[in-house]
Amino acid sequence: MKTPLILITNDDGADAKGIEVLTRLMCEIGDVIVMAPDGARSAQSNALTVTHPIRFKKIEEVPGLTRYSCTGTPTDCVKLALNEIVDRKPDLLVSGINHGSNAAINVIYSGTMGAVLEGCENDILSIGFSLCNHSYDADFTNFESYITQIAKLALQNGLPHGTCLNVNAPMGEIAGIRVSRQCDGKWTKEFAKRTDPQGRSYFWLTGNFENHEPDAPDTDEWALSQGYISVVPTKIDMTAYQAMDEVRGWEF
Amino acid sequence: MKTPLILITNDDGADAKGIEVLTRLMCEIGDVIVMAPDGARSAQSNALTVTHPIRFKKIEEVPGLTRYSCTGTPTDCVKLALNEIVDRKPDLLVSGINHGSNAAINVIYSGTMGAVLEGCENDILSIGFSLCNHSYDADFTNFESYITQIAKLALQNGLPHGTCLNVNAPMGEIAGIRVSRQCDGKWTKEFAKRTDPQGRSYFWLTGNFENHEPDAPDTDEWALSQGYISVVPTKIDMTAYQAMDEVRGWEF
Repeated sequence: MKTPLILITNDDGADAKGIEVLTRLMCEIGDVIVMAPDGARSAQSNALTVTHPIRFKKIEEVPGLTRYSCTGTPTDCVKLALNEIVDRKPDLLVSGINHGSNAAINVIYSGTMGAVLEGCENDILSIGFSLCNHSYDADFTNFESYITQIAKLALQNGLPHGTCLNVNAPMGEIAGIRVSRQCDGKWTKEFAKRTDPQGRSYFWLTGNFENHEPDAPDTDEWALSQGYISVVPTKIDMTAYQAMDEVRGWEF
Repeated sequence: MKTPLILITNDDGADAKGIEVLTRLMCEIGDVIVMAPDGARSAQSNALTVTHPIRFKKIEEVPGLTRYSCTGTPTDCVKLALNEIVDRKPDLLVSGINHGSNAAINVIYSGTMGAVLEGCENDILSIGFSLCNHSYDADFTNFESYITQIAKLALQNGLPHGTCLNVNAPMGEIAGIRVSRQCDGKWTKEFAKRTDPQGRSYFWLTGNFENHEPDAPDTDEWALSQGYISVVPTKIDMTAYQAMDEVRGWEF
């Protein structure tokens, strides 16, 4: 088998510990190209930079590994790498390791998963890895062997067209892997209101996640709560097929 | 029936023609609150503002209509309105009218649809309206009666939990409405490379949409190509259920 070409990005920035760990792991599997934002781009979802141009620069080149940083979003990074850098389609795109959970509804806000969806749109086997620990200095050690295993299994087995993986790991000891579905829930109490020295109000995003199905054992949140890694097959086709007939029944 | 409370936002900014038209139409159906970005936020997807605080201000208050502008993204606008403005859950959230298509894969990049997904997460009946015309001065006239009809039918019929609508209209004459699915395709040739006066390269996002199934008559792109409005029931649960057994079969 030819050496796999692996594209790596993230949303915590090229200097984050998570992407450093992920890069080290992937260099044992294939040839690696990193194109990551030049600083934190958390919660950038699939945002694209359209009101100003973007740039990138090479920051490291050693045998088997070339690293670039980019002024754009995670999705911009994937687009730039695919359009301007690679000479063939990568065999695998991995994004992360994110410092913080991307389980449940967080998938729609996540820059990490935005990059994964972008890879998926381009028919590249794509996986997002996240650890449920926001700390800058989070300990990824327990997650490492699982990441290598999941990446290798994905390369061996492939995924159906339009499907990618959203992989989240709990803090601490890991009990194993559970293939799960996206948990239903929402964020509440989302803003901290403060007042600036001029007496004007401003709002910081914060909030609590409200799990709407805490007892359902097939969700990603349940797996994580029990110490398992959750693996959610995720798709870019957002059509609600089961609602199509109902809407067709409206008297337009 | 109590007068419906309708929340409006968009990604082209509070001063765009599209939201002005949408606000006029919704004021004939219910009490309206507008919370829109204070400038263009195109292609912001579900991006959230997390690295700095956001603010909003009231820009108009007349009977049945209150308008605010906000320094954040479309998704921030919805979160702010729900957390800080409304005294009850809106009966309907509408986003747009976007200047430009949000059909096919554009749903994942769209700030218009980001706001709609945010409403959907909060169990609010939510609809995104887009016209396939990027022009600042786009003519929304032909679309207007359909928007009113779709909003009224949605209020009458509701939508299943976790489901919203992505409505796109063609330019020119409209042949009718087709309930469709998200077309499979991707963007190609995505960057215009230029050189600044200092000799450094920079990249503008551009590109062509490549339709992977131009002959499939059940897609949104097909409906639009035939002069129909496409209505795509869209869901926030991105789980690829049909791939779960396959991934469970991997030898973890």
